[in-house]
Amino acid sequence: MAIVLGPNRYGKAETRLVRVVRDGGVHHVKDVNVSTSLSGAMSEAHLTGDNAAVLPTDTQKNTAYALAREHGVGQIEDFALLLARHFTGHDTIHHARVAVEEYGWNRIGGTGHSFARDGGEVRTCVAHHDRDGRASVVSGLTGLVVMNTTGSEFHGFLTDPYTTLEPATDRILATAVDARWRHAGTSADFAASFALVRGRLLEAFAGTHSLSLQQTLYAMGERVLNACPDICEIRLTLPNRHHFPVDLAPFGLDNENEIFYAADRPYGLIEGTVLRDDAPGAGFAWE
Amino acid sequence: MAIVLGPNRYGKAETRLVRVVRDGGVHHVKDVNVSTSLSGAMSEAHLTGDNAAVLPTDTQKNTAYALAREHGVGQIEDFALLLARHFTGHDTIHHARVAVEEYGWNRIGGTGHSFARDGGEVRTCVAHHDRDGRASVVSGLTGLVVMNTTGSEFHGFLTDPYTTLEPATDRILATAVDARWRHAGTSADFAASFALVRGRLLEAFAGTHSLSLQQTLYAMGERVLNACPDICEIRLTLPNRHHFPVDLAPFGLDNENEIFYAADRPYGLIEGTVLRDDAPGAGFAWE
Amino acid sequence: MAIVLGPNRYGKAETRLVRVVRDGGVHHVKDVNVSTSLSGAMSEAHLTGDNAAVLPTDTQKNTAYALAREHGVGQIEDFALLLARHFTGHDTIHHARVAVEEYGWNRIGGTGHSFARDGGEVRTCVAHHDRDGRASVVSGLTGLVVMNTTGSEFHGFLTDPYTTLEPATDRILATAVDARWRHAGTSADFAASFALVRGRLLEAFAGTHSLSLQQTLYAMGERVLNACPDICEIRLTLPNRHHFPVDLAPFGLDNENEIFYAADRPYGLIEGTVLRDDAPGAGFAWE
Amino acid sequence: MAIVLGPNRYGKAETRLVRVVRDGGVHHVKDVNVSTSLSGAMSEAHLTGDNAAVLPTDTQKNTAYALAREHGVGQIEDFALLLARHFTGHDTIHHARVAVEEYGWNRIGGTGHSFARDGGEVRTCVAHHDRDGRASVVSGLTGLVVMNTTGSEFHGFLTDPYTTLEPATDRILATAVDARWRHAGTSADFAASFALVRGRLLEAFAGTHSLSLQQTLYAMGERVLNACPDICEIRLTLPNRHHFPVDLAPFGLDNENEIFYAADRPYGLIEGTVLRDDAPGAGFAWE
Repeated sequence: MAIVLGPNRYGKAETRLVRVVRDGGVHHVKDVNVSTSLSGAMSEAHLTGDNAAVLPTDTQKNTAYALAREHGVGQIEDFALLLARHFTGHDTIHHARVAVEEYGWNRIGGTGHSFARDGGEVRTCVAHHDRDGRASVVSGLTGLVVMNTTGSEFHGFLTDPYTTLEPATDRILATAVDARWRHAGTSADFAASFALVRGRLLEAFAGTHSLSLQQTLYAMGERVLNACPDICEIRLTLPNRHHFPVDLAPFGLDNENEIFYAADRPYGLIEGTVLRDDAPGAGFAWE
Repeated sequence: MAIVLGPNRYGKAETRLVRVVRDGGVHHVKDVNVSTSLSGAMSEAHLTGDNAAVLPTDTQKNTAYALAREHGVGQIEDFALLLARHFTGHDTIHHARVAVEEYGWNRIGGTGHSFARDGGEVRTCVAHHDRDGRASVVSGLTGLVVMNTTGSEFHGFLTDPYTTLEPATDRILATAVDARWRHAGTSADFAASFALVRGRLLEAFAGTHSLSLQQTLYAMGERVLNACPDICEIRLTLPNRHHFPVDLAPFGLDNENEIFYAADRPYGLIEGTVLRDDAPGAGFAWE
Repeated sequence: MAIVLGPNRYGKAETRLVRVVRDGGVHHVKDVNVSTSLSGAMSEAHLTGDNAAVLPTDTQKNTAYALAREHGVGQIEDFALLLARHFTGHDTIHHARVAVEEYGWNRIGGTGHSFARDGGEVRTCVAHHDRDGRASVVSGLTGLVVMNTTGSEFHGFLTDPYTTLEPATDRILATAVDARWRHAGTSADFAASFALVRGRLLEAFAGTHSLSLQQTLYAMGERVLNACPDICEIRLTLPNRHHFPVDLAPFGLDNENEIFYAADRPYGLIEGTVLRDDAPGAGFAWE
Repeated sequence: MAIVLGPNRYGKAETRLVRVVRDGGVHHVKDVNVSTSLSGAMSEAHLTGDNAAVLPTDTQKNTAYALAREHGVGQIEDFALLLARHFTGHDTIHHARVAVEEYGWNRIGGTGHSFARDGGEVRTCVAHHDRDGRASVVSGLTGLVVMNTTGSEFHGFLTDPYTTLEPATDRILATAVDARWRHAGTSADFAASFALVRGRLLEAFAGTHSLSLQQTLYAMGERVLNACPDICEIRLTLPNRHHFPVDLAPFGLDNENEIFYAADRPYGLIEGTVLRDDAPGAGFAWE
């Protein structure tokens, strides 16, 4: 029996990069957060502290800034792939994972260089590139908080001696959508597919008469896959942000689904994958 | 010399209340966070634990829910005043402070009961009501994150031996606006004045060629007061969210205000008040 | 009627400074977060963008680092006073407020240069210095989370039609202590007084059979003032972190104060001041 | 080609449970946060909204409380296994994952029922139980923030045109340890092994003269495996919390590793696994 080094990676997390492009008086902003993770010939670094194979995380940060200057930052998936490919150009770096978050800014009406942050929603991606040539792209969004004030039921569930929940035929359904979808290739029109996915997620959430959040989750995933041939798999994490009707009877008041207590914890948490039955293997895409 | 009880207040903080109004198939959502603070004849509670004067914080929570059912939740200022007046109806409660935060929801296109959260911005208010009949209302907003990608300079400043900052003639100016404004009375059209203030804040931020964030702050406050006769004072807290141009010279690259590092800490913090010279005394309004 | 500039201040917030003192192989760590706020002849900066009176916030940051090197960082109150006095040496700076937070580190057993962070509690202070010679020091702590699992009651309270709370004769009392205390002067032994205050707060929290959190608050404040002649006033903010016994009767189980649900929101919030009746005026100390 | 449901699970997240055991006047507190995730015959719930197989998340919460009352909450690993086994007793629940976090409380000196929270560190575990009889336990801790003020170097690294980092022969090494270790079986003395692991992690962090954080990571993992025969694998995530020496030369001051700026973002992030070469397959343990 021996003790050995297993899977490992290292990098610079959360390099905050803002790029401004000036089109005359009309500016464009790209506001991203870049995290790079490299792996490869790192045994010596771990076992003896010999760093000859280690590209410093500081260099990774510099590289994000420099490549943004040299190549611009278009769609975050393309920028992530660019960085990942770049790093695997080093002999000792066999594999690179690059995650990018993007924060939206809306132009303030009628101005050229003034912007307001577009809320809590974040666009995400994770790209991998391996020196063997394989690559993958997962796109996503997080923090898209949505609510249906009716059109949601939950009944007919399994009960046991610890069950006290009453069946509901009309309840609020609220969640913060965290969605990640895997592209079959690495060369999609990522702007278009992002817009399409986001639209279908909202459409399916709003349009599904829900008998359970699981049903809504599947409907959201199915709608996305039906709309986007390039996407082969989607993973959704949907917290059930409970809104409980307040019992006002002690005060002589009824409450026909009008007044709710929005609870923090605990919360339901529904996680699921929807995919094509002929989806190619995911490989390292979700790592 | 004796040890005595000084100013005190107590209440229920962060009662999360969501109200749904159904106008046929078209629903309307009000999502608020209510914090109540009462003061009055509370010496015995502190000194001996005799709670005869203490309306439980649990009752304050119930009251928020019940009054929302009985009176609805219109503008948060009106609801806060309603609650504050209500509590001071108790003999032992001499003064009430009610703070309400409101979270915005946008209707998902074309639907009647589906909504998406409107980002990170929060509308706020603090209302006071005293049993002597005095009352006050401060409205506000927080989390309005804005950025000008040009039109901002900073130079001609005081220097001393610890000064290394270079003068800037073109820099990014970004901040998260935290604004609170005091109404001269308690019966404004709070929806209209909120929209007006928010618009003027954005307009002044975007429209001011800034020589310092202080100058922008004053311009924002002045613009609001000029537009809203009902408002007598505004207080602004503006963190300077530094965006530093990255030095790319070591890589043989120029950087003409294109690539920035968005820093976390430390940050500048500019706080200021703009008011009318004939503003009535604030009394307890800002407490 | 005219629009005018009211009270204002500006500075650098959250300068993170760690100082290491090496006593041979035995190192000592000081880990602080410094926020400086200056005010003075700032009208022109606000009204016209003339920054001649403005010491840049970047310089304030540099000054914190440089004075730490020149004078060390002993007790945070002394360091805050040093900085505040320094800034008011500039003609245009009439008043300085310096807030410092300190994060504790415990030496890892038997080592000279290895440390582990001491949890969530933070020591705080706010010092003011005015060019007229007046100065003030408020010390404090925040994030001291404590719990009594018995010895707490709450009954005999005021009831109204919205009251449903049952009287409690044995409940959990838990809070996160936020305490700030004002020194009569500016030259105390701040290390000793901090230790004394912290000890008395814990002692009073643990030792008071509580009929209300208000009573506990007052006992904590009184105990501190009795122990520390130098302290003339203490302000406590005590959230009531509710722990509700879970109703297990539906499952045929009793629950004699054994199993609790620790709630997030809403929470009670008790705020109070305890002071000496001959305390000198606070002036700007609490600003 | 068809669209199908892939891996999925659902449950109740973050059920906050505090248990008080009374040994006469001496009380003992267990403060935990329980998250349960079930999977099994859930196709119908997703595809048609038929919930006959779905044990409500509300029931999962009730079960956590009820089993805590019936069986107590000893070591969190044992409690997690108990819950996981319980849920798989339902025909439709084929697999259960239970995660528990534990928050420490220290007795306030000399008291029987008064406690203070033990900082930011959290003990964790994830247990799985499958109806086929397989089970797994991963224990862990997070939020253990540590620092060496010397004894850390970083040089001899790979350089490329984007490298500007200077070699360091004496730097601060600080991190927030996030460690998870897999037990070979499910019946260890988890209290003892937790104490042993935590001690070895601190010992290895403090005792390793570090040429890179990777080397420190491996040393920490190796030390744990050498000390704990029951543990077959450990995964460490170590953010490199950079402390940069401040350049005080512009002020005529030297800075021999005395004054540091503690940076927020970006940060290095070192992730690695250390394991026995004969470790049994992990199966679902890390899911």
